[in-house]
Amino acid sequence: MARPITFLSDYGTDDEFAGVCRGVIARIAPDARVIDLSHGIRRHDVRHGAGVLANVLPYSPPGIHLAVVDPGVGTGRRAVAVRTGDDDRILVGPDNGLLWPAAERLGGAVDAVDVSISAVRLEPVSATFHGRDVFAPVAAALADGARPVDLGEPVSVDDLARLERRAPRIEPGRNVSASVAYVDRFGNATLDLAESEARAGGLKPDGTVIVDVGATTHHATYAVTFADVPEGSLLLYLDSYGNLSLAVNRGSASALLRLEPGDEVVLQPG
Amino acid sequence: MARPITFLSDYGTDDEFAGVCRGVIARIAPDARVIDLSHGIRRHDVRHGAGVLANVLPYSPPGIHLAVVDPGVGTGRRAVAVRTGDDDRILVGPDNGLLWPAAERLGGAVDAVDVSISAVRLEPVSATFHGRDVFAPVAAALADGARPVDLGEPVSVDDLARLERRAPRIEPGRNVSASVAYVDRFGNATLDLAESEARAGGLKPDGTVIVDVGATTHHATYAVTFADVPEGSLLLYLDSYGNLSLAVNRGSASALLRLEPGDEVVLQPG
Amino acid sequence: MARPITFLSDYGTDDEFAGVCRGVIARIAPDARVIDLSHGIRRHDVRHGAGVLANVLPYSPPGIHLAVVDPGVGTGRRAVAVRTGDDDRILVGPDNGLLWPAAERLGGAVDAVDVSISAVRLEPVSATFHGRDVFAPVAAALADGARPVDLGEPVSVDDLARLERRAPRIEPGRNVSASVAYVDRFGNATLDLAESEARAGGLKPDGTVIVDVGATTHHATYAVTFADVPEGSLLLYLDSYGNLSLAVNRGSASALLRLEPGDEVVLQPG
Repeated sequence: MARPITFLSDYGTDDEFAGVCRGVIARIAPDARVIDLSHGIRRHDVRHGAGVLANVLPYSPPGIHLAVVDPGVGTGRRAVAVRTGDDDRILVGPDNGLLWPAAERLGGAVDAVDVSISAVRLEPVSATFHGRDVFAPVAAALADGARPVDLGEPVSVDDLARLERRAPRIEPGRNVSASVAYVDRFGNATLDLAESEARAGGLKPDGTVIVDVGATTHHATYAVTFADVPEGSLLLYLDSYGNLSLAVNRGSASALLRLEPGDEVVLQPG
Repeated sequence: MARPITFLSDYGTDDEFAGVCRGVIARIAPDARVIDLSHGIRRHDVRHGAGVLANVLPYSPPGIHLAVVDPGVGTGRRAVAVRTGDDDRILVGPDNGLLWPAAERLGGAVDAVDVSISAVRLEPVSATFHGRDVFAPVAAALADGARPVDLGEPVSVDDLARLERRAPRIEPGRNVSASVAYVDRFGNATLDLAESEARAGGLKPDGTVIVDVGATTHHATYAVTFADVPEGSLLLYLDSYGNLSLAVNRGSASALLRLEPGDEVVLQPG
Repeated sequence: MARPITFLSDYGTDDEFAGVCRGVIARIAPDARVIDLSHGIRRHDVRHGAGVLANVLPYSPPGIHLAVVDPGVGTGRRAVAVRTGDDDRILVGPDNGLLWPAAERLGGAVDAVDVSISAVRLEPVSATFHGRDVFAPVAAALADGARPVDLGEPVSVDDLARLERRAPRIEPGRNVSASVAYVDRFGNATLDLAESEARAGGLKPDGTVIVDVGATTHHATYAVTFADVPEGSLLLYLDSYGNLSLAVNRGSASALLRLEPGDEVVLQPG
């Protein structure tokens, strides 16, 4: 019985990139179920991919977790398989920080192997498509029962690339500056900000929040859900993954505030 | 042997919303096949989702039919599982009319349960993502053999939300006014109009139809298929689900006529 | 044990076209695994679909290969199932050239049947959606063990529609004119040009290439991978399927050069 494989990438749905990886997996592990989590990560945006992966994997069955957002393909960056502390999950992808937040949320990275020159790679390995030639075959072999040590050389988890959080700056009781982690299809902007940090900055649930995005200033309600504010109004809320986010009820916060990932917003009690 | 689950939503493919629901299903019902029908329903357009669901389910295997277009998430609207008269199909989704036309086409709603506070929900239930926290777990439990009554309180099918059809206005033998139900990727505009109603309005197969969209007037052919008219020409035809639609051969009717869902068109014999 | 079905089309992901075909397949062959290769082929672009299909199938498990890019639906074009020389693969789709390059790459077309009026079709067959009514049921029946001859009338492989290559024009040692076969989501432009032809035209790996696109002229490096050139710079490289392509490192060649499929570029050593 093969283990399931989840699959996340920045390949989009216009091209066949994700599809050919599914084909490669089905050749090697015909019984492994493939669960597409998302292929809509912003191109080459490792931080976006890492955030979504960490959000989603706790909801997914333990198994092999293939993730490819790989701006450094063709350079010397390693390809790795990382085992986590919880549930014997194995993350497979480039060693560029993409896997790190998810591993931390799933019991931490316990051991890792460098699969860059794994014997299960498809030869000749292309310079530009390691999803197909390295990551998918490695994930499929693991799903089919191979052990990580069969597929590469052990590396210390201390040597794995990490992704530092963009920590907010807090002026206690007065305000908090946080950055936009990513923006979803509906224009909801997820902040790199925990509920406790917002409170430390003086923001109060059900209270008004003044949102300063540089050029313009807006008023939001610190609410529980969209329907707590009138249509078209701005709210700050704890999203379904436990991240603080800005949204507009039946509208788009990113359009209203002209927010992009990485932008900084200053929030103060109103 | 788990039953198959079809899945339709307005989640799009840019984000992980549909993917995390697939993950939740795979955790609970690892053997259930998930058949993605569409995630391209227009955001919050219950009428669009209901129309596509009713069109597509007769072609899908009997099983569990998960559908999420849910502008009222976080309000008091119920979450329901509705059993249909044909084939023991069970529809799962918000009780906002989305499921009604499909149920009607599949033998009618026979019985229903309110699953809003089902024991299989993921706790804590978020205020904004019931697809993940309520609908997907309920669908997975049903696929895995749970009975609806195990998952919620019975409700009368007479109390389920319904979606009234936007009936056309017919001037017998002279014309018919119909509304645009939805528009597909190719710009084909499906009307809320039956073949018999078009005939009652005086339209004749193979005849010319004058299409009045308010600002402009166009000539169409009442044809069988695209290739019956020259490239770039407008046609009225019975689409593959049995709905009358406006299309342009190798072009876009919605672009030519500037049509949006809900717009009204007047058709008269030419 | 059902055989796997790969699925490629121009149906996009906004509508339910691919989804309803998956539903039809699951009704007929509940155990057949469906591997979505791509539904992002440009609408009605048979050449794009044929190129992607030929690139991808060698990476996919042998089985049934459903492909639908079908501008001639509703006309007299045949629906066919074509068996290839390698691995007993069976291609299913319209007989308009779409299947030909893939068949050639997989051992050639060995035998074929016309399935246009196959008994497994869904009746009544619509005039406009043969993916659902003809191709999907035929693919599912084949996956479930039917033989091609059970599903239609034999036709000579010599009568199948072919797709002629747009061969480049080579001035030996001086330059080569090639056409753009297709453009991917990242703006990489794949040329109808083999490595040996580029060399015959005087281009040298690691050398400079002058790229003339009509209105403008650009300098590219004939490189191995994106990272071989600075960010924003143009490169000519052998893509992961073995096709010569133009790309910009972390940018878009199609945007920089304003290239569309079918456009001609002249490449000369710089």
